[in-house]
Amino acid sequence: MSLPLSPLPAAAEPLAPPDLALAEWTRALRPSTIQAMMGHMARPGVISFALGYPAPELFPVDDYLAAAERVLRTDTGALQYRVPHGPLKEQVAALMRQRGVACRPEQVFLTTGAQQALALLARLFLEPGGAVICDRLVYMGFQQVVESYSPRILAVDSDLETGIDVGAVQAHLERGPRPAFIYCITDGHNPLGVSVSLEKRLRLAELARRHRVPLIEDDAYGLLHYGQPLPPIRALEDRWVFYVGSFSKVMAPGFRTGWLVVPEKLVKVLGCAKDGADIDTSTFSQRLVSAYLEAGGFEAHLGRIRAAYQERRDTMLAALARHFPAGTRWSVPRNGALLWVELPAGCDAAAMLPAILEREGVAYVPGNAFSFDGRAGTPAMRLNFSFPSVAQIEEGMARLGRVFREAASRQAA
Amino acid sequence: MSLPLSPLPAAAEPLAPPDLALAEWTRALRPSTIQAMMGHMARPGVISFALGYPAPELFPVDDYLAAAERVLRTDTGALQYRVPHGPLKEQVAALMRQRGVACRPEQVFLTTGAQQALALLARLFLEPGGAVICDRLVYMGFQQVVESYSPRILAVDSDLETGIDVGAVQAHLERGPRPAFIYCITDGHNPLGVSVSLEKRLRLAELARRHRVPLIEDDAYGLLHYGQPLPPIRALEDRWVFYVGSFSKVMAPGFRTGWLVVPEKLVKVLGCAKDGADIDTSTFSQRLVSAYLEAGGFEAHLGRIRAAYQERRDTMLAALARHFPAGTRWSVPRNGALLWVELPAGCDAAAMLPAILEREGVAYVPGNAFSFDGRAGTPAMRLNFSFPSVAQIEEGMARLGRVFREAASRQAA
Repeated sequence: MSLPLSPLPAAAEPLAPPDLALAEWTRALRPSTIQAMMGHMARPGVISFALGYPAPELFPVDDYLAAAERVLRTDTGALQYRVPHGPLKEQVAALMRQRGVACRPEQVFLTTGAQQALALLARLFLEPGGAVICDRLVYMGFQQVVESYSPRILAVDSDLETGIDVGAVQAHLERGPRPAFIYCITDGHNPLGVSVSLEKRLRLAELARRHRVPLIEDDAYGLLHYGQPLPPIRALEDRWVFYVGSFSKVMAPGFRTGWLVVPEKLVKVLGCAKDGADIDTSTFSQRLVSAYLEAGGFEAHLGRIRAAYQERRDTMLAALARHFPAGTRWSVPRNGALLWVELPAGCDAAAMLPAILEREGVAYVPGNAFSFDGRAGTPAMRLNFSFPSVAQIEEGMARLGRVFREAASRQAA
Repeated sequence: MSLPLSPLPAAAEPLAPPDLALAEWTRALRPSTIQAMMGHMARPGVISFALGYPAPELFPVDDYLAAAERVLRTDTGALQYRVPHGPLKEQVAALMRQRGVACRPEQVFLTTGAQQALALLARLFLEPGGAVICDRLVYMGFQQVVESYSPRILAVDSDLETGIDVGAVQAHLERGPRPAFIYCITDGHNPLGVSVSLEKRLRLAELARRHRVPLIEDDAYGLLHYGQPLPPIRALEDRWVFYVGSFSKVMAPGFRTGWLVVPEKLVKVLGCAKDGADIDTSTFSQRLVSAYLEAGGFEAHLGRIRAAYQERRDTMLAALARHFPAGTRWSVPRNGALLWVELPAGCDAAAMLPAILEREGVAYVPGNAFSFDGRAGTPAMRLNFSFPSVAQIEEGMARLGRVFREAASRQAA
């Protein structure tokens, strides 16, 4: 894939070739910020706070290779098409119990990462032009899922301490068009870094139940907690909450293995939609992940990455306090890998990114990339703390802080 | 995924739970025959001619493990999200030259198998309710891709010697609604086993060009040829032909790695659609496939599987002539892994399958599974010859032949 050179390509630039009769929805297509940032992160020397990558130096590569070997030496069928791997569904159900969720293996539906889980649920629930309740600032991959339905977005604000504004959700449910679903990233919100408070989780469960509206709970960061974890909403409501989980952040994105927890009656319909999407989740990946979990090193690995990411988060928080201009506000994530920074006037993170990338060699994602219309989320940025080392965080944050301090003081002058 | 117990679940059985407000298209959803047959094939002792699986005993497992180790020991980034792997795009472009196709690496778009390639192209080209030209009997995965668009199917018949009826394609183009695209499986057609004649390829290229209609060429079996290969249509027309290729049949389905060859201007739009579908094709798979190709054993492996499959095909053809009732007709595949058998009156392959599975322990896919309305393709069946051994083919075909001979003579009596 060729990459746009600008960090955030102009929204006006048409992507769809005019001489091909492409489907109508492609006309609104914006260039992919994720793809663009992946390109920038690949440049040597760049300190990247841009994407939610795990720390590659912490991948238990020997254990993965041993699992791959065990799987392929035991059964060459591990490279075939196959029905979803039963033992992995049982292992996921056991992991879900750790998250406080009771489910049977029959309710676990394996997917090609959490992204496909979202895409399949949207395919089932969302009609073209349908309404969706979600945060005003939301995971770009979710935007990419729903934008091909030209949806009506019922946007809801969030605060950095307790998450999504449940009163606004309730107002939409009571007075707006009936939504196809509510989308909620409960823990370690992408991009805001916030975890929804327990009281709000209870109210969201109650709203989904009372209004009989599906709530898609994206829990990609649920297992990465840096303190006492809260129960996901699925633990509070099992009928109207459709839960999305992933091994990408706690094992490796390269296995492309995630899952849904859904009412069992939805599994066959999901199976048809998945057949059409990619036939099946790589049998090899499913069995490799299962063999790795079976070998018993996962808990220790989770402990190691939680400790490492917590240290990186704390380094980043200290650097924000030390280097950034007065008036800067940020979230203090109790989960995940992302942190949201609201900058003072004069610090236009979107406009300044090309120069910062070029001169300072530091990458981040400007806040407006997370808004459907590109207007909300400014001046702000999303920072990732799982991928860079502690030393890179100290260096990169010092560079960013200096640039933004200068911008803020120019504004004040 | 729980599996329906009947081999071909009744089309009338509603799949979508009535108490959830699912998208309208799900009401027409039929249970997945692919998933059902995968379940049956997993039963011990069953001789399976059902699905297009490669022979697992021929997977070069040592070479795959060596490639996995090389990749993970060299760069732990191989487990991250990443931009598509440049070297693999170059290797695909080189493979395409073997197929007579000239393309640049920038025109290669890597996908999670050929199935996702089809799903992405449909997403770009097909509006809900749009028209599509395709064979009346066609790959089930293609049906699953388009049925969520509630399409208007402009069906075209095919013969078992030269493939798709190009005159009928032309008639649709000249007199029907404008189609979003033509779908064509040029070599080793699924399910018919036929390869389109060179003369028809030239005419299809000309029709796509003249009518400025995209032709999606599904070449999943192109590299599995048992004689002099013909050029794909993409070799005859580079602007209107969108080519789909795959490593599933020639390396392993478990890597879920396929590709598109498209005009470069379509790559960014495809990238956005793919981001929404599953972010990226497993970086680990991409690099493993690339490292395996780099090591240089692929040509020899291709030679081995071509020779083995040709012997299996010939065994199956001989068994058809020896065991099957008079009036049986079949294709003689010069490509691929599938063979189509038209049975004489009295041999209702669909109705007889449950008893044949149960009593004879032999699996196949009844012909009507490949028809959008379940009515065409009867009495007929699709047989796979790549997965079973020569001995299993001899045994399974003798059993099938006996049952169908009895059925045909009951009918005659």
